[in-house]
Amino acid sequence: MLKTKAYAAQNPKSKLAPFTIQRREPGARDVLIKILYCGVCHSDIHQARDEWGQASFPMVPGHEIVGKVIRTGSKVKRFRAGESVGVGCFVDSCRKCPSCQEGLEQYCESHISFTYNCTEQDQKTPTYGGYSSQITVDEKYVLKISNKLPLAKAAPLLCAGVTTYSPLKHFKVAKGQSVGVVGLGGLGHMAVKFAAAMGAEVTVFSTSPSKQKDARRLGARHFVNTKTLKDSAPLQDQFDLILDSVSAPHDINFYLNFLKREGTLVLVGAPEKPYALEPFSLIRKRRKMAGSLIGGIRETQEMLDFCARKKITAEVEVVPVQKVNEAYERTIKGDVHYRFVLDLQTIGS
Amino acid sequence: MLKTKAYAAQNPKSKLAPFTIQRREPGARDVLIKILYCGVCHSDIHQARDEWGQASFPMVPGHEIVGKVIRTGSKVKRFRAGESVGVGCFVDSCRKCPSCQEGLEQYCESHISFTYNCTEQDQKTPTYGGYSSQITVDEKYVLKISNKLPLAKAAPLLCAGVTTYSPLKHFKVAKGQSVGVVGLGGLGHMAVKFAAAMGAEVTVFSTSPSKQKDARRLGARHFVNTKTLKDSAPLQDQFDLILDSVSAPHDINFYLNFLKREGTLVLVGAPEKPYALEPFSLIRKRRKMAGSLIGGIRETQEMLDFCARKKITAEVEVVPVQKVNEAYERTIKGDVHYRFVLDLQTIGS
Repeated sequence: MLKTKAYAAQNPKSKLAPFTIQRREPGARDVLIKILYCGVCHSDIHQARDEWGQASFPMVPGHEIVGKVIRTGSKVKRFRAGESVGVGCFVDSCRKCPSCQEGLEQYCESHISFTYNCTEQDQKTPTYGGYSSQITVDEKYVLKISNKLPLAKAAPLLCAGVTTYSPLKHFKVAKGQSVGVVGLGGLGHMAVKFAAAMGAEVTVFSTSPSKQKDARRLGARHFVNTKTLKDSAPLQDQFDLILDSVSAPHDINFYLNFLKREGTLVLVGAPEKPYALEPFSLIRKRRKMAGSLIGGIRETQEMLDFCARKKITAEVEVVPVQKVNEAYERTIKGDVHYRFVLDLQTIGS
Repeated sequence: MLKTKAYAAQNPKSKLAPFTIQRREPGARDVLIKILYCGVCHSDIHQARDEWGQASFPMVPGHEIVGKVIRTGSKVKRFRAGESVGVGCFVDSCRKCPSCQEGLEQYCESHISFTYNCTEQDQKTPTYGGYSSQITVDEKYVLKISNKLPLAKAAPLLCAGVTTYSPLKHFKVAKGQSVGVVGLGGLGHMAVKFAAAMGAEVTVFSTSPSKQKDARRLGARHFVNTKTLKDSAPLQDQFDLILDSVSAPHDINFYLNFLKREGTLVLVGAPEKPYALEPFSLIRKRRKMAGSLIGGIRETQEMLDFCARKKITAEVEVVPVQKVNEAYERTIKGDVHYRFVLDLQTIGS
């Protein structure tokens, strides 16, 4: 086993603090990765504080991992030492169910091994995430990252990136369409970049007027301050797709009514309390509401290649891993533009 | 003008009673129809009692109309005196908006003239429905009914029929798919017949164990009594499409979790209170929830022709129009298999 420095939560109330974990020696098909950067996803905080239930401690969060290959197992063909790679929200899945077979491992019907707060395929060995110095992952679940992408800014692509890219592709966002993005945070700011790169006319809905300038810089054509909006009539029936990234409670019907006939609202954020859904918001215009969960390995690679081609990365604030607890507090307050990325190079080995 | 006998509600509290209305003399493109039968839709009751707001009195409900052509205007080409015809939920629409142009008049973006409790395109002349002896309708909004279809049993096809046929077609129900139908009432029983005729394996979800036998007779392969169901695990992730026809409050997440990955739950019933929608019911499997509103003229004709070919009609209890108030009470109690149809031949002229 490989002794590995990490930052862990020991229980839902504890701050994250240095902790030592063991990584497996790379097997024939494994890649051992030196972790350089790891993004701070809001779900890291929810899980470290056991706000979603089923948290398992000690917990090493982090599923927006980028780094360099240290060494590879004897049968690994796709990776070589020194290459830039990424690891996202999961490090394995059953590989046999229809979803895995179709490359939609995120919907694995048997057991998906999330990158942390979960178990390997043996359903016993705990998984530990990217707030650590290194990680061993089967090559099938490792992503290639183009040298064109600056690594720190690429880290959030592994979760925030693919979580927004996947539904935009799945629901066929295309040139000339009107796309709304609700919330301009870690997910929302990536959605704006992707939808704009796909040729859509993007409108940002936000409660923070201070983000108006940013919204335009990121590629949005329009900005709606929903706190001060007086007349929503001109927005009714205007959008082909609305991606809702907000996980605070809000009125979903307000946005559904902005969809054209047959338009789709996609949820990627999940408030703790259920939405109050008025059936006529859907019925009146044959509208749809859908959910989408991260993305599969094939699509994550496609997204990373798209980003390299289109020069898309996340907007990040890089902080040393030692500042993770401060980053958590600021993330909760929404005081981040738009993603914290932990620098793991200072953790030691 | 043509003096016409009808049954009307004079206010939200009054029973329906005989009333005389005026129909227009058929213009060049109009068809004058002797009404033989009219179905009793639950929405007739909601509107007559002003439970949805915006009710306009006196009100002559009824939008499941079948009858025979009495005479036609000089420019009418598609219909001749004596032919069997139908009129559904609307008698006109703007004809110019994209939805009208696409044959989806039910989603008219300007002004749709619902068959009753609404106005003609002048937005002044009130419309009166099918609880009456005759009606004058522009030929574009009149449906042909095959002689193969018994007229009384065909009446409910004009609303209950197309309301369920349309989403099954739109969401591409096909041979071999698993389709769930929630609620076995006026809409639900038509959904079972259509989905079975399209080759799907149909499961009925109902709180009335007494309907189990009927469900099978109508074409369902399985019946789930949701009141006594103890273990819902075998139903999880099993359905391609679930059509929810229930307008009483119920837990929508219970059914969403029965959908396969990318499955769709379609609402055609609308409870008065909003649904409590758990976002993860959609997110976990990239599921969709949609609404659907009746159907356009072209699709209504397609549905009627499908019914003639497949020998599909509604299950009805025919009562003289004089018993309409009794039919309302029994409909509210769910004491009908599965639709009341008023016989208008006894109304006089």
